[in-house]
Amino acid sequence: MNVLIVYAHPEPRSLNGALKDFTVQRLQAAGHAVQVSDLYAMAWKAPIDASDSVDHDPATRLDVSEASRRAFASGSQRPDIAAEQEKLRWADGVILQFPLWWFSMPAILKGWVDRVYAYGFAYGVGEHSDARWGDRYGEGSMVGKRAMLVVTTGGWESHYGPRGINGPMDDLLFPIHHGILHYPGFDVLPPFVVHRTSRIDEVRFAGLCEALGERLDNLWRTEPIAYRKQNAGDYEIPALTLKADVAPGQKGFAAHVLQPQA
Amino acid sequence: MNVLIVYAHPEPRSLNGALKDFTVQRLQAAGHAVQVSDLYAMAWKAPIDASDSVDHDPATRLDVSEASRRAFASGSQRPDIAAEQEKLRWADGVILQFPLWWFSMPAILKGWVDRVYAYGFAYGVGEHSDARWGDRYGEGSMVGKRAMLVVTTGGWESHYGPRGINGPMDDLLFPIHHGILHYPGFDVLPPFVVHRTSRIDEVRFAGLCEALGERLDNLWRTEPIAYRKQNAGDYEIPALTLKADVAPGQKGFAAHVLQPQA
Repeated sequence: MNVLIVYAHPEPRSLNGALKDFTVQRLQAAGHAVQVSDLYAMAWKAPIDASDSVDHDPATRLDVSEASRRAFASGSQRPDIAAEQEKLRWADGVILQFPLWWFSMPAILKGWVDRVYAYGFAYGVGEHSDARWGDRYGEGSMVGKRAMLVVTTGGWESHYGPRGINGPMDDLLFPIHHGILHYPGFDVLPPFVVHRTSRIDEVRFAGLCEALGERLDNLWRTEPIAYRKQNAGDYEIPALTLKADVAPGQKGFAAHVLQPQA
Repeated sequence: MNVLIVYAHPEPRSLNGALKDFTVQRLQAAGHAVQVSDLYAMAWKAPIDASDSVDHDPATRLDVSEASRRAFASGSQRPDIAAEQEKLRWADGVILQFPLWWFSMPAILKGWVDRVYAYGFAYGVGEHSDARWGDRYGEGSMVGKRAMLVVTTGGWESHYGPRGINGPMDDLLFPIHHGILHYPGFDVLPPFVVHRTSRIDEVRFAGLCEALGERLDNLWRTEPIAYRKQNAGDYEIPALTLKADVAPGQKGFAAHVLQPQA
């Protein structure tokens, strides 16, 4: 299989760097082809702007989506964007690896999403009608591909627990899991999360590698998070709210995960 | 009062640009002093890296927090970072204005947070002991200041409702409201959210300005979101989980908001 690792940490000699190197080796040893988008090493341009459409006329008002749509359709995207899209087409599996900074991804990785996720590629795909609201949330360009987050954080696991002060990790990651990965069609695997990164000695690092290695070995066997598909009947269209008889009374992020049959 | 607007949109002739201009005028007309950090116009550097500490030795392994702590303490931060911190010290109120891209802030604004929120300034403040876990979540450098988000989105309000497919807007914004604003001590006001940005004519724009103007007129009277304070007795320390008798049985983001007395 082909695996793309999108990796966002400025220091190769960091825990993140070591885990990324371990991941590459483990996947290659299992016979997979691996590409790494090391965003800091690539000096990835983070902000989306007018220069992302090489033929944008500066005198014209920039409509970000419309410029993205036109550039994607006409092949006038900046080459760095097109190259990342090509890696995504190539990949069967995608790993986003990053330290959790301010409860979200580092700016450089957000800028990878903002720019690479073009109109016509990751959104604005498919027909809008009475029965469909585009190919998204379970359909779209990434259908058949799997994605997983590898996330490090300085805080304790309890701080991210169901009643932890930071909010539950699953809820903090929902905008990424559901809004960035499920949206264009990825099957989203449970994340691999490392806590208390400042307290990692050799023993703990070995344990982390063992656990991560197991997750990597099972990349194609692990059950994805069972997010509901937008166009499969659970949502009113165009309101895009859950139908009254679907998860009745439930609100919030968790309502968008299918419940196991009783 | 002094108001800082941190604004992240690449096109001045956009809805965001018009709302930002309106905000500046309305606040100035009411006698407030206003500064705008127009991140795109400033060509704000988004990714935090070794160059943010001007005396960082490239041969040394970069520890992002430790480099931030040292640079902040010794005055060796890059001048662009120090200048934004000075604006935050000056401000009584802060408005973050941005389009919601992929259910979070644009990369350039995330990079403002990642870089300006230095160790010793926005985190790593205060003592850690049996009774306290630093000055954060209701304490810290921003105590006494207010903050509000002004957010635009292409989707419909129902898509962001309690059972909407994107997840509730309040929950999507929790990592920013609670994790970025409440954390260093801001009083966080309810956000001003604009939906369906592609469907705004003159009449709707006038209505938006009226509603936003009212919010701006009441910036110092609006009741902040009642987030719990970390060190005020509701949380176990160091687990930082809600005590058993606090919001018993409740889980998730909403448990961190004080409930009105029955």
